[in-house]
Amino acid sequence: MNFIEDIIQSISDKRSVVCMGLDPRIDKEGEIPQFLINELEDPNKIILEFNKTLIDNTFDLIPVIKPQIAFYEKYEALNALKDTIKYAHKKDLLVILDSKRNDIGSTSEAYAYSTFKVFNADACTLNAYLGIDGVKPFLQYKEKGKFILVKTSNPSSKDFQNIFSAHLPDIINSKTEINVENITLERNYIKMARLVYDWGNQLDRFSEFHNLGVVVGATFPEELKAVRNVIKNSFILLPGFGAQGAKVSDIKFGFNQNGLGGIVNSSRGIIYAYCKSEKYPPSKFGEAARDKISEMNFKINKEINL
Amino acid sequence: MNFIEDIIQSISDKRSVVCMGLDPRIDKEGEIPQFLINELEDPNKIILEFNKTLIDNTFDLIPVIKPQIAFYEKYEALNALKDTIKYAHKKDLLVILDSKRNDIGSTSEAYAYSTFKVFNADACTLNAYLGIDGVKPFLQYKEKGKFILVKTSNPSSKDFQNIFSAHLPDIINSKTEINVENITLERNYIKMARLVYDWGNQLDRFSEFHNLGVVVGATFPEELKAVRNVIKNSFILLPGFGAQGAKVSDIKFGFNQNGLGGIVNSSRGIIYAYCKSEKYPPSKFGEAARDKISEMNFKINKEINL
Repeated sequence: MNFIEDIIQSISDKRSVVCMGLDPRIDKEGEIPQFLINELEDPNKIILEFNKTLIDNTFDLIPVIKPQIAFYEKYEALNALKDTIKYAHKKDLLVILDSKRNDIGSTSEAYAYSTFKVFNADACTLNAYLGIDGVKPFLQYKEKGKFILVKTSNPSSKDFQNIFSAHLPDIINSKTEINVENITLERNYIKMARLVYDWGNQLDRFSEFHNLGVVVGATFPEELKAVRNVIKNSFILLPGFGAQGAKVSDIKFGFNQNGLGGIVNSSRGIIYAYCKSEKYPPSKFGEAARDKISEMNFKINKEINL
Repeated sequence: MNFIEDIIQSISDKRSVVCMGLDPRIDKEGEIPQFLINELEDPNKIILEFNKTLIDNTFDLIPVIKPQIAFYEKYEALNALKDTIKYAHKKDLLVILDSKRNDIGSTSEAYAYSTFKVFNADACTLNAYLGIDGVKPFLQYKEKGKFILVKTSNPSSKDFQNIFSAHLPDIINSKTEINVENITLERNYIKMARLVYDWGNQLDRFSEFHNLGVVVGATFPEELKAVRNVIKNSFILLPGFGAQGAKVSDIKFGFNQNGLGGIVNSSRGIIYAYCKSEKYPPSKFGEAARDKISEMNFKINKEINL
């Protein structure tokens, strides 16, 4: 497999750029249906059954799923995560493991191994606050996809990502503060996008894209446009669609004229769609997810000319 | 328990600011001794036995241990992690779970639950690239410690953490680029330290410290000094001692006149100390760790007047 090649093929075959986020929540009412919880008891069984039903109902409509590892960790259900990924592969789905890992080189190697060898994900999300050291061990898995956080979908992403940063490569490294005149400042998320551009520059491309992508919240269309101007060759994973409030018109700058370049994720908006309409009893949560995805595909494809 | 209160008490009782990093590695020669691997086979058993022996040999000399979750994930040994934490608590050790988690609010809640409820850690490390949203769910656990990455110990931490950033709160948010004159720039890690200062400002203090700390690599003494000037009330977790090359004189700026304010972590330098000297056969890896810690305590306490 090669992630970028496979996802471009699958997007074209299935005519979809939608990613179904698998964020299983057992605690609250209106999330994983109560009948599954009562019937199966063990979180590993509940979550696996929930995910399999979702996959069975949607695999022909989407190229990729994105399990969020935090929830599997919370319920001590990492076996359900492994089994979900195995099942998704059988059903011709690619898998992005959303884990936002980050660490120094020798530890990052362990994370990369666990992501790609233990869980057998096809791609993952990464946080690059630590610079290239933490990313390199993931780049060693050349055929796998990596999506680096650039501008995240949450409101407070502005706290750090939107502060201004300056490119002053020649300033002596030991200085911690400096006064400057007439220099150009850009926001931190743009600086992060430039780093990703540099790191990805030498990678093999399929069509115009390589395996080092970025994450930009669909909730921030202006920022998405700015990031796309910096990185032409990266796929952009766009979370924040649906429950977090992003609309179809917000995502178009992520895509090229062929409708390629972006993956639009929705988690709660799809998998708990049955809670939002009286049309679906809890037993029909899979059908509700399928209908929601059909609606997303229709609306998004019109906007991006896929 | 209250992390900051308990660690200050323990530092004073044991006269040590050393943290033993538990990074189990089974693959390479010269790491977890071969006799344990051959005898126990199952990674959960190997790692737990290794950790218990290390704890038995060192618990009276140190206030705290820091398991790095990446390695437990790699070997599918999260049970060994849970059991290690339980064992450490019995032996009067505090536990910082090194996981550098980061996500949007609703997902971060799941990580916080898993850190403090599933694994029962007393403190953890966090990456705050996403801003306060991802940190808040951890702050809800008021009595637990949190250490936010400010300046990490790895060489490429400069890629992003050392670029210059500007404080321009009144600039219109939609602009992505701007020209400015006569403004003061500071490096990104200083900006992150200022965010932590703001977030921690309202927290309860014990002595002068509260439960929101930071991580600064012991490998960067100048940066440590600069961060300490920004945050007087945060404990600083100092990794990078030993295998990564930091020396005793590099850490002194982390501490106040009473020898408080810092925790000095060494992982490989302590737990694989038996590999570095012919004095210790593999069966004596616990004694080697103890001797290494005694040496560290002696040298560090002299430097920081503890």
